Amino acid sequence: MNSYLNNAWYMAGWAKDLQDTPVAREFLETPVVMFRDAGGSPAALYDMCPHRFAPLSRGTLVEGQIQCGYHGLRFAGDGRCTHNPWTGRLPPSAQVQSFPMVEQDGILWIWMGDRDRADPDRIIRYPELADGDYRFVFGSSQVNAHYELVTDNLLDLLHSPYLHPGFGADWRPEYKYRVEGDTVYSDYRVPPYRGSEFTDILWPQTRGKMVDDFESMRWNPPCTLELRIFIGVEGMKVTEGEGFINIAPHIVTPANKTSTHYFWGSGIKASESTVTDEAHLEIVSQAFDAEDAPMLEAVQRRLGGNTDIMARKPRPVALPGDTSAVHARNILKKLIKQEKQTT
Amino acid sequence: MNSYLNNAWYMAGWAKDLQDTPVAREFLETPVVMFRDAGGSPAALYDMCPHRFAPLSRGTLVEGQIQCGYHGLRFAGDGRCTHNPWTGRLPPSAQVQSFPMVEQDGILWIWMGDRDRADPDRIIRYPELADGDYRFVFGSSQVNAHYELVTDNLLDLLHSPYLHPGFGADWRPEYKYRVEGDTVYSDYRVPPYRGSEFTDILWPQTRGKMVDDFESMRWNPPCTLELRIFIGVEGMKVTEGEGFINIAPHIVTPANKTSTHYFWGSGIKASESTVTDEAHLEIVSQAFDAEDAPMLEAVQRRLGGNTDIMARKPRPVALPGDTSAVHARNILKKLIKQEKQTT
Amino acid sequence: MNSYLNNAWYMAGWAKDLQDTPVAREFLETPVVMFRDAGGSPAALYDMCPHRFAPLSRGTLVEGQIQCGYHGLRFAGDGRCTHNPWTGRLPPSAQVQSFPMVEQDGILWIWMGDRDRADPDRIIRYPELADGDYRFVFGSSQVNAHYELVTDNLLDLLHSPYLHPGFGADWRPEYKYRVEGDTVYSDYRVPPYRGSEFTDILWPQTRGKMVDDFESMRWNPPCTLELRIFIGVEGMKVTEGEGFINIAPHIVTPANKTSTHYFWGSGIKASESTVTDEAHLEIVSQAFDAEDAPMLEAVQRRLGGNTDIMARKPRPVALPGDTSAVHARNILKKLIKQEKQTT
Ligand code: FES
Ligand code: FES
Ligand code: FES
Repeated sequence: MNSYLNNAWYMAGWAKDLQDTPVAREFLETPVVMFRDAGGSPAALYDMCPHRFAPLSRGTLVEGQIQCGYHGLRFAGDGRCTHNPWTGRLPPSAQVQSFPMVEQDGILWIWMGDRDRADPDRIIRYPELADGDYRFVFGSSQVNAHYELVTDNLLDLLHSPYLHPGFGADWRPEYKYRVEGDTVYSDYRVPPYRGSEFTDILWPQTRGKMVDDFESMRWNPPCTLELRIFIGVEGMKVTEGEGFINIAPHIVTPANKTSTHYFWGSGIKASESTVTDEAHLEIVSQAFDAEDAPMLEAVQRRLGGNTDIMARKPRPVALPGDTSAVHARNILKKLIKQEKQTT
Repeated sequence: MNSYLNNAWYMAGWAKDLQDTPVAREFLETPVVMFRDAGGSPAALYDMCPHRFAPLSRGTLVEGQIQCGYHGLRFAGDGRCTHNPWTGRLPPSAQVQSFPMVEQDGILWIWMGDRDRADPDRIIRYPELADGDYRFVFGSSQVNAHYELVTDNLLDLLHSPYLHPGFGADWRPEYKYRVEGDTVYSDYRVPPYRGSEFTDILWPQTRGKMVDDFESMRWNPPCTLELRIFIGVEGMKVTEGEGFINIAPHIVTPANKTSTHYFWGSGIKASESTVTDEAHLEIVSQAFDAEDAPMLEAVQRRLGGNTDIMARKPRPVALPGDTSAVHARNILKKLIKQEKQTT
Repeated sequence: MNSYLNNAWYMAGWAKDLQDTPVAREFLETPVVMFRDAGGSPAALYDMCPHRFAPLSRGTLVEGQIQCGYHGLRFAGDGRCTHNPWTGRLPPSAQVQSFPMVEQDGILWIWMGDRDRADPDRIIRYPELADGDYRFVFGSSQVNAHYELVTDNLLDLLHSPYLHPGFGADWRPEYKYRVEGDTVYSDYRVPPYRGSEFTDILWPQTRGKMVDDFESMRWNPPCTLELRIFIGVEGMKVTEGEGFINIAPHIVTPANKTSTHYFWGSGIKASESTVTDEAHLEIVSQAFDAEDAPMLEAVQRRLGGNTDIMARKPRPVALPGDTSAVHARNILKKLIKQEKQTT
């Protein structure tokens, strides 16, 4: 599938990414500059001055407006030209496309489609990110692979014992998928095992004991995921909602056909863990940035410019662990088709 | 416009660039090797040996001829094969295309078109470059942008206060354009201002005083420019030809569609300034190489492979400062059209 | 000519390249992973897991089989899937293409064509490589040029005095070509000369004396060469088979249209030379890797994407030294044509 779901909220970055300077990022093949307006609200414009096409992100912020770094035209967060230093008159066509943005749960969300349909109530919530009982570490990387390869990877954690030794080479779960409406889940119940570097670091109290482990990855279209891990030591009955908890948003946004923004967080309940943020960040960034990303980029190189692994001949051999990812791909394909028909 | 004016003199380099070794440069999508012949005159050949296509620029100079570094064929400055070490006989087809060159005012000029039309009298003069009363510093860089983006930038100095803080953020001129035949001028009269890092460094005697400033950029087709700046302190009446003078050749030559040689010089009258060459070079190379070039390359990236910003949809929004550049583009378009009709 | 001879043995590497870890290389535009099976025999598979297209070369060796580094499928040297950690059942389509390999004379050979025709008896022998009387140094590099540019270079050593000063700037041979069946020879008889850095280092006993020199380069299709050099001091009659000997396999394998594996060795008879391997390696790698490779890559850049220098207009000017290479090109063209007709 070579197109995007346009009418959807995509993660544009962490709220903390946006401070005093403009930030340039590409979303859905569109260059975007983001900044905070005078009131501190996030704004997003097409990152090109309508005068001589300088990227606005090379400019400076003046009282919550962005001033072009080439000849000084100034634009508000809604894309209107507000200042022309050379004649005072505002060229009527000097208007820049703006994109709706929402800041919620410490996340910036952007809407690249039809702005009349941008309903903030449809944004997936990550309430623990703003909950003082939790401590999170964060990552932002760019993976040179199609975004569905990234979501496939997240929906099939059976890669973990091979690609992520730090999560346990003897982590051998039973896998089940669930589909509820347009939401897809991968559930993993792991028979008691000796724990891993990951469990040892996050919950030192489990060290040396056999651990119970239940994990559930949730996918919402187009590419918004969250993993919840529940860990207990022998004798604790661990299911969803019980045990020591790790909550991990995994949110991906296509930059273009073969490059993807990958935003992830990993949070523990402060009362359950004494791990330092440094140690926490080290063990998870190793997995997501140093192990997943190079593998996904290697797969994309094998695909060449091809962006739909399922359409390649010969087709990939199916394993049971792929089921959730295949469901998610089909739901997204359906939604993109619907969007094309109604526009 | 996707073609070049072929029957024109282009700057190939500074005379001092050509010493004892061959120099390889691309002009108008053509690889060229330049060297000095036995008499010291500059010569230019198509940079490819007709035997097995080695770049001749990988060879060596032997008595003012270029000897191929692969199997030793030797060529004179006019492209004739003069020596075959393996049989003595000269292969009749072993001929390399040569290009007329002229060395004048410390500049090397090359003619890439129909050689019968190569009239040295048509070369634009830069007499001060060879005038001992002046001291010049020089730059040679390659900018990855279409050459008309570079000439546009030079013909619209209203970018200066935004892109070049060292030339004064409060440099706020009145701009006028003049067109005389095929020559275009941008004239800037600047109301008295506090001077800038640039005026402070070049003419320390103006420091702390309000300065008068008149500047005139001249463009001759295809892309040969010169800026003259006249600076005076309060009470001096500064117009063209009066005041402390800065003469700046800005000469650009297309390497290919999206890469341009940018040669610039900056000269002061030795009697008017005590500036060192080091300080002089630092302030101007900061502006031309470290500020202009990255902005032009960023604009080219926004244009992708497109080489005519004026043909892009939607069209760029026009500001008054663009007028000279638009005139120059139209004159060049006319000359290219004429050249195509007569050949 | 834009195709390859598929039914042929190509050098895949030196035997010593294959130790405990998988090795990834591209041959004839095909990604290949090589490893040793449980018995130590070399095996080669298409370097892509049929499940989710991970390069198998990112995996690990488990008892002579390759285990995919993504989800753990395991494959034997013949390409059969032997282990599925997740269900035990082996997906019937989980089969990887394998390529015949032979290890002989310290060289790994691979057959990329129709496996029924892979006859090991057709492999060119390099017996001295496995002969204790000889000491060899080795090189493996990748040259970004079409493989026939590399073989042309080897079949025309008249480039030597220009490109390889270490082999003697006054090395001025008489050249003869011989064609025997599909084998082509370039023979060089060099009138006595003062020796070179190369002869001084390899045979110190010749230093300061005039040397006799006979050299013969042999080419077998598709691109398997060997140079034999015979050196004597004044008074020795040196022909093929007499004098101090240097034996140099030069074996090239196309990676793709414009990139070539270049494997070379250089051997002396231990009884004839006291040269250290370090000094030996330095003088020859300077020539092959630091002088030949950049020249060939520069020629390829002049050709752009063009892969047949002989088909370019205007055609290259012919010199007598090219004759062997032209014969070799014609033989290879004939063999590729025959192969296409019979399949
Ligand atoms: S390009 Fe932005 S003001 Fe000119
Ligand atoms: S390529 Fe120039 S002499 Fe052979
Ligand atoms: S990609 Fe190899 S086992 Fe999944």
